[in-house]
Amino acid sequence: KQTPVTPFKQPPAAAAASKDLPYMYDSTVEATRLFDCLIHPVKPKKFFSELWEKKPLLVKRHMPCYNDGWFSTEELDKILRKENIIFGKNIDVTTYSNGKRETHNPPGRAYAPIVWDYFQNGCSVRLLNPQTYSHNVWKFLSVLQEYFGCMVGANIYLTPAGSQGFAPHWDDIEAFVLQLEGKKHWRLYSPRNDGEVLARYSSGNFTSADVGEPILDVMLEPGDLLYFPRGVIHQADTPTDSHSLHVTVSTFQQNSWGDLMEQIVPTALQLAIEEDLEFRKGLPRDYLSYMGVVNQDSDNPERKAFLRKIEQLMTKLLSYAPVDAACDQMGKKCVHDSLPPVLTKAEEMCSIHGNGERWDTKLNTVRGAVELEPDTPIKIIRKGVLRLVGEEDQVRIYYTLENARLYHDTEPKFFEISADAAPAVEHLIFAYPDFVTVDSLPMKTLPEKTEIANALYEKGLLMTDEPMQAVDDSSSEDEDI
Amino acid sequence: KQTPVTPFKQPPAAAAASKDLPYMYDSTVEATRLFDCLIHPVKPKKFFSELWEKKPLLVKRHMPCYNDGWFSTEELDKILRKENIIFGKNIDVTTYSNGKRETHNPPGRAYAPIVWDYFQNGCSVRLLNPQTYSHNVWKFLSVLQEYFGCMVGANIYLTPAGSQGFAPHWDDIEAFVLQLEGKKHWRLYSPRNDGEVLARYSSGNFTSADVGEPILDVMLEPGDLLYFPRGVIHQADTPTDSHSLHVTVSTFQQNSWGDLMEQIVPTALQLAIEEDLEFRKGLPRDYLSYMGVVNQDSDNPERKAFLRKIEQLMTKLLSYAPVDAACDQMGKKCVHDSLPPVLTKAEEMCSIHGNGERWDTKLNTVRGAVELEPDTPIKIIRKGVLRLVGEEDQVRIYYTLENARLYHDTEPKFFEISADAAPAVEHLIFAYPDFVTVDSLPMKTLPEKTEIANALYEKGLLMTDEPMQAVDDSSSEDEDI
Amino acid sequence: KQTPVTPFKQPPAAAAASKDLPYMYDSTVEATRLFDCLIHPVKPKKFFSELWEKKPLLVKRHMPCYNDGWFSTEELDKILRKENIIFGKNIDVTTYSNGKRETHNPPGRAYAPIVWDYFQNGCSVRLLNPQTYSHNVWKFLSVLQEYFGCMVGANIYLTPAGSQGFAPHWDDIEAFVLQLEGKKHWRLYSPRNDGEVLARYSSGNFTSADVGEPILDVMLEPGDLLYFPRGVIHQADTPTDSHSLHVTVSTFQQNSWGDLMEQIVPTALQLAIEEDLEFRKGLPRDYLSYMGVVNQDSDNPERKAFLRKIEQLMTKLLSYAPVDAACDQMGKKCVHDSLPPVLTKAEEMCSIHGNGERWDTKLNTVRGAVELEPDTPIKIIRKGVLRLVGEEDQVRIYYTLENARLYHDTEPKFFEISADAAPAVEHLIFAYPDFVTVDSLPMKTLPEKTEIANALYEKGLLMTDEPMQAVDDSSSEDEDI
Amino acid sequence: KQTPVTPFKQPPAAAAASKDLPYMYDSTVEATRLFDCLIHPVKPKKFFSELWEKKPLLVKRHMPCYNDGWFSTEELDKILRKENIIFGKNIDVTTYSNGKRETHNPPGRAYAPIVWDYFQNGCSVRLLNPQTYSHNVWKFLSVLQEYFGCMVGANIYLTPAGSQGFAPHWDDIEAFVLQLEGKKHWRLYSPRNDGEVLARYSSGNFTSADVGEPILDVMLEPGDLLYFPRGVIHQADTPTDSHSLHVTVSTFQQNSWGDLMEQIVPTALQLAIEEDLEFRKGLPRDYLSYMGVVNQDSDNPERKAFLRKIEQLMTKLLSYAPVDAACDQMGKKCVHDSLPPVLTKAEEMCSIHGNGERWDTKLNTVRGAVELEPDTPIKIIRKGVLRLVGEEDQVRIYYTLENARLYHDTEPKFFEISADAAPAVEHLIFAYPDFVTVDSLPMKTLPEKTEIANALYEKGLLMTDEPMQAVDDSSSEDEDI
Repeated sequence: KQTPVTPFKQPPAAAAASKDLPYMYDSTVEATRLFDCLIHPVKPKKFFSELWEKKPLLVKRHMPCYNDGWFSTEELDKILRKENIIFGKNIDVTTYSNGKRETHNPPGRAYAPIVWDYFQNGCSVRLLNPQTYSHNVWKFLSVLQEYFGCMVGANIYLTPAGSQGFAPHWDDIEAFVLQLEGKKHWRLYSPRNDGEVLARYSSGNFTSADVGEPILDVMLEPGDLLYFPRGVIHQADTPTDSHSLHVTVSTFQQNSWGDLMEQIVPTALQLAIEEDLEFRKGLPRDYLSYMGVVNQDSDNPERKAFLRKIEQLMTKLLSYAPVDAACDQMGKKCVHDSLPPVLTKAEEMCSIHGNGERWDTKLNTVRGAVELEPDTPIKIIRKGVLRLVGEEDQVRIYYTLENARLYHDTEPKFFEISADAAPAVEHLIFAYPDFVTVDSLPMKTLPEKTEIANALYEKGLLMTDEPMQAVDDSSSEDEDI
Repeated sequence: KQTPVTPFKQPPAAAAASKDLPYMYDSTVEATRLFDCLIHPVKPKKFFSELWEKKPLLVKRHMPCYNDGWFSTEELDKILRKENIIFGKNIDVTTYSNGKRETHNPPGRAYAPIVWDYFQNGCSVRLLNPQTYSHNVWKFLSVLQEYFGCMVGANIYLTPAGSQGFAPHWDDIEAFVLQLEGKKHWRLYSPRNDGEVLARYSSGNFTSADVGEPILDVMLEPGDLLYFPRGVIHQADTPTDSHSLHVTVSTFQQNSWGDLMEQIVPTALQLAIEEDLEFRKGLPRDYLSYMGVVNQDSDNPERKAFLRKIEQLMTKLLSYAPVDAACDQMGKKCVHDSLPPVLTKAEEMCSIHGNGERWDTKLNTVRGAVELEPDTPIKIIRKGVLRLVGEEDQVRIYYTLENARLYHDTEPKFFEISADAAPAVEHLIFAYPDFVTVDSLPMKTLPEKTEIANALYEKGLLMTDEPMQAVDDSSSEDEDI
Repeated sequence: KQTPVTPFKQPPAAAAASKDLPYMYDSTVEATRLFDCLIHPVKPKKFFSELWEKKPLLVKRHMPCYNDGWFSTEELDKILRKENIIFGKNIDVTTYSNGKRETHNPPGRAYAPIVWDYFQNGCSVRLLNPQTYSHNVWKFLSVLQEYFGCMVGANIYLTPAGSQGFAPHWDDIEAFVLQLEGKKHWRLYSPRNDGEVLARYSSGNFTSADVGEPILDVMLEPGDLLYFPRGVIHQADTPTDSHSLHVTVSTFQQNSWGDLMEQIVPTALQLAIEEDLEFRKGLPRDYLSYMGVVNQDSDNPERKAFLRKIEQLMTKLLSYAPVDAACDQMGKKCVHDSLPPVLTKAEEMCSIHGNGERWDTKLNTVRGAVELEPDTPIKIIRKGVLRLVGEEDQVRIYYTLENARLYHDTEPKFFEISADAAPAVEHLIFAYPDFVTVDSLPMKTLPEKTEIANALYEKGLLMTDEPMQAVDDSSSEDEDI
Repeated sequence: KQTPVTPFKQPPAAAAASKDLPYMYDSTVEATRLFDCLIHPVKPKKFFSELWEKKPLLVKRHMPCYNDGWFSTEELDKILRKENIIFGKNIDVTTYSNGKRETHNPPGRAYAPIVWDYFQNGCSVRLLNPQTYSHNVWKFLSVLQEYFGCMVGANIYLTPAGSQGFAPHWDDIEAFVLQLEGKKHWRLYSPRNDGEVLARYSSGNFTSADVGEPILDVMLEPGDLLYFPRGVIHQADTPTDSHSLHVTVSTFQQNSWGDLMEQIVPTALQLAIEEDLEFRKGLPRDYLSYMGVVNQDSDNPERKAFLRKIEQLMTKLLSYAPVDAACDQMGKKCVHDSLPPVLTKAEEMCSIHGNGERWDTKLNTVRGAVELEPDTPIKIIRKGVLRLVGEEDQVRIYYTLENARLYHDTEPKFFEISADAAPAVEHLIFAYPDFVTVDSLPMKTLPEKTEIANALYEKGLLMTDEPMQAVDDSSSEDEDI
């Protein structure tokens, strides 16, 4: 019988944080560890070379507790009681029976008894963005997003016994289904043609006739995992003797080469036109007479020359492709899409999140000021918490820390730094997860080094290796004693 | 020495709820009690006849704890650490010195140490909408809004010793200043002319030269109250030996006869035009030659007749004035502006907020269904929680329960009921705070009565006199035993 | 047998202009004369006291040429060939048969042969805004608008024999139907209830069943006139032996007391709130509990007091009613809606439209400068060509001269004058149709007088009593000789 | 002494039309002839190989009448009197003196005396879009646009003696300056760097210091021509003894390879993503860590592989480039930008513009119906009058005929035809300038052939070789005789 890799009663992120010393903490390592657990016993290397974006993966674990800690029906009940969950916005109640998919959302708030009433009457319940309400889902997803280098989302699905909530369809994301409670019978089907493979947009609902024979037909039990790529058609129902609860972790939405090319190509063309006279020259005076669909079958020599010229210009485009700037734009988008990190107590104590001035109720005054010194060891608080982007003639730092847990509830957050300070930020990025001293930052003068360090610190982006001592505390605490 | 009317260490709303049996709870009574405390020892009758909207009121209590429970600098520190408070949106840091008012907000999140740094450097701190973050402020304001029949808001002001945060100005609200910590020196000035009395919009900043001699010059200490009407110019600074913390409770913004008239008058005119031929008749063919500012001084007889005709039409307007419908629109606006109520444990247990189906983790199933019976005593959960409005040929119930604690963060919430059910809702409104049975609702059949009762119950608007027993629990619980 | 009042072979406006000396020209007189002809032999006094806005008027003239000069099918043919007339925008082809109203417009330009093809196939042709293309229609309407003091429009209707183009309906304008060619059978029906009398908006299409028995059933022949008020239901068809052509002249759209009240009432309320403390006082704290539709039948004394208070405030509104300013707003709208005037040769020669600097091709230079002298007699070029309006703390002159012949194709045109110059403009307005000298304008200094006179002259709004002599022409022309 | 190629007293377009038989008329030939005259005695072949988009061309003709027929100051005076010319919209009055460029437009209508007053005071006058008001300018430009295969525009510049109206600057068009009256002194300057050559957008104003030494310094006299490419800096002033009038004919605005590429490239990428799996595959999981400006100098092997992959995808793009569809989009834009053609009397009589049903005033009925027969010879009325475009799963014919003379005053005009009819339209396009019979159109049945021919005829796009005889006229005209 298998052993869980991590004692999942305590969620792995928390486990990692508590086991390690804070100054050793590396969000990249933690992300890797969490993903390893997710697909265990399959190895990542094998997963990414043989399965990822290619075929489904089923892991039957025979260990019901393996996925514990993610979510439970009990937590759903609590969320419905405590949070302002709105039908149609945060939660859906749906059925799929006799080939018909229906949504039954009443208007207004989803009070627990109303949701349970629908559930008792055979409706499936889908909780959207559970990371907004569930601390653990938030924590897991915020760690996984560092692993995938792009947004990681989730939905929760609760299905009563003997029912199905959704019609056969495909999604636009890589899906990791983690079975949490009860059982669910899944059927997966191949994309029906090449154009549907790794489909860019989700499909509509299919009928049984549309989808043919399943390529996988399996019963998931608690602890099991099912992965399948975007474009794979799927449907799932519950046996008559058991409800089902699972979380679907999703990623790689709009994160393809084509998406990056959409950043690169229009800008490349603008640059080419600005810089290359060939692109600014006038078209042949009479090209409209031999070009156009009407002339498609003509073998006019001017037409051929015209087509060769287009070929030559397309080839030239490559040399103007702003690949790195486009990647930074993708990175900026990723930062905006991301959840803010769940900071550990230790991280808080070593950063502005938990250290520094506070109100002293006894003394009726502010106490606890701290100051970065030249020899204070600092590092970026999490690998994925910021991105340095050149934009509109500015150097900007985009960061995740002030994002809401609700997707895109805040605008992209950034601040500008001077071009001179960029190497200092790069130094911190490359040094991660190691600490460097303020004084070691590659800038000319100490005041400049301190200034950029303070700017990052005050945005919550830096942590020290241990909690800084308050400059005003030693004496006063003495007095207290 | 004065005694506090209510032991305010325990906030009065909570006190009231815990002392009384829930089925006796009357939100109107509680609201009255809270307002009595607020202005104690002044009596409400005297207050409203002699002071309200007329002159300032100062209550020196010599009892520092009198306003306890509202808020503290300690709570501000906690909020800054826990919530995503944003400079310029939720909080401001300001100064007023040498006659110059400045706002010093940096961009981004107001981490506690940054706020305290500004405070140490002489900035005043204003926390907007503290009800969004402070449970007690939320509770007090949500009770007071039932008293005033319109939105009640608040700001928190924290000022360091020896400073002033704001220039002399007037506000567009009735202000109740409750001194919480430290001391503050206030100066009040009369409106400078009749047009400024009960001003409809807040003023800009004044200079000392603008405002003349104060009509009140006083030092507030913890426990004290200062009330003044909208339009009264004021400024306040701290002595050099003490910081100051106060909450300003505000109400009656855009709640004047004129505001109501703005609802009535345009609609009255539309109705008159639709129903009264006099309004649809053509203007005199040549009126443009004797009317208009150019002809203002003319005593042309046609001109006089024209003016008499206008007078006659203006008089006729009154008979088309939709006063009740306009009041309902004001009531609907009030419902949208309002905070949701802070329900007591007892209220929750007697309503959908705490009773009814829940997930039974041991049995892995839903349990606890309850049902309104013909003889179940019911009442509206709070007097001010809903408003019945006729609108767009529908009967609608607007309600506060799904409002966010953040002002206008949700759209107005309503649902439609059938015209036949309106008398049943009216019956419940008039019966408040008494319970009536489902069967006593003035509708024809029991299924109709049950349907409207269930509709209200499922929106969280009804409570029963005691927690209903689950219909599925008796037997199963027996089995458990 | 009747004699035409005016020899209409020569259109009356042109006739008037040519008969009179230009310095005697009075657009008010001409407008009166044209309207007298229109309804002849009915007298205006009788028309306006007994018929206008009350009942239909039929004038059978037995003089086929009486309406000549307005329009002809021949002119329609020319317009279709010369102008870019677009189906659905400028022209409609329609049928009404077997109780069904249809529009048959193809997309694109209405080339004459296409229109005639539809006509041959039984379609009625409606030309919208003929004043844009027909010089005479423009001239007549621009004169009539001075008579009615508001916009006067027109449509042309051409109907093939034995057909009907439109279903029974009512319009939102006072209609004057002038039969031009062929015959048309008209049926008029009373408004079906009081609310439809002088209806504010046009109706949809009716069936025969909707409209009952006609109150008038008549055959129009060339030279005849039919007038009926807005709200009167009508339909018309052609006999099998004759096509029909008529023009419908329309006026008094949105020109009722109610329309003026819509200008007055909201502003009156804003002024009352600004100036009258009663309007700024707060509403009673608990009014929402006794007001509103729910309480409609209550005889609560507070409720009665509340209603009395509303009555009192409504009455007070009258004293804040800005009647003259509202009339000026109506006048401004009328100026924007109006056609520009058709100036006579004489008017052109006595104004900037025809006098002043011009390019001298022989001399290759500019010649012909003219100058207003203190003793130059001046008057406004047409009574209705401008309106003086106080607005946004400015004195503005709105004017029709730069309006397009296409309705609202230009923005309202105005220019600002100094407040000091307003009496001078008023002087010119009151003096009309008489001339006054520049020097007689009521301003302090001659340069000021000349400045305002020049400003009006350069906008084309002033004319002199005779063509001014060029200051550079006398000597130079002598030299030429 | 030179002889004019065409007797330009009679404008060349009119001359061409009157000389040739209408059935021989070929708009391409006429366009060529007009351009030949324009640059005469330079030969087009030489012009396009050596000068076009490369260097300025000066033709001193010593024949003052050579450019006659385009425009004159006399015509400007007439336009100002007749048309509603608005300052700032249709005309500008400007000065450039002491290095300062100023616009002096007053608001409102540009009455002739006001314009001449500014002119007398040293202002230059620029008339925009003279083709809207001048028949000849319209005619010449509408012919030239067929030559250039893209929009041809014009401005008129009138400058008083001893002045300059504009600062040194470059434009975004190929400019042909035709001197019409008086003299003008021009100075041209090279683009200051490679990026300014054939500049895509017009420049701001330069100072003398910015522009250096002129590459051309010349006095233009009536009959002369000056051509220079976009991006060439220029300025011009008048000698003290002569005013100047010239027209600048402009073309090739936004008509470069780059503009075409902007049509091609985004669509190519969308097609590639839809059709090519490589573009839909996910990005490498950790690419954000080695890509981006921060990593620009890294020689990480993954980075190199990433860049190679981009190169490979860019190369693949070419095979998805929709060149013909993009050219059709350019053609559609050209059709929308174009002036409608000025049809000759002959063209009118052989098309719907002048032939077909008309109102017979004597008979009071419609006469003159014509019908395309199987053997009727037809051709497209002008080569450039339409474009066949595949768009949104439709085959559409975009056409210029309903465009206004005012630039973009109408929406793009098109109608849909069936896919089956496309070859018939192509047949007509390829046959131009020859006639083909209706029956020869490549469609299956005669009714289909007649239907598409009628559709084109009714849109005014077809002409017959001679005026068709009316089917209803023979007998009736006999009777008339």
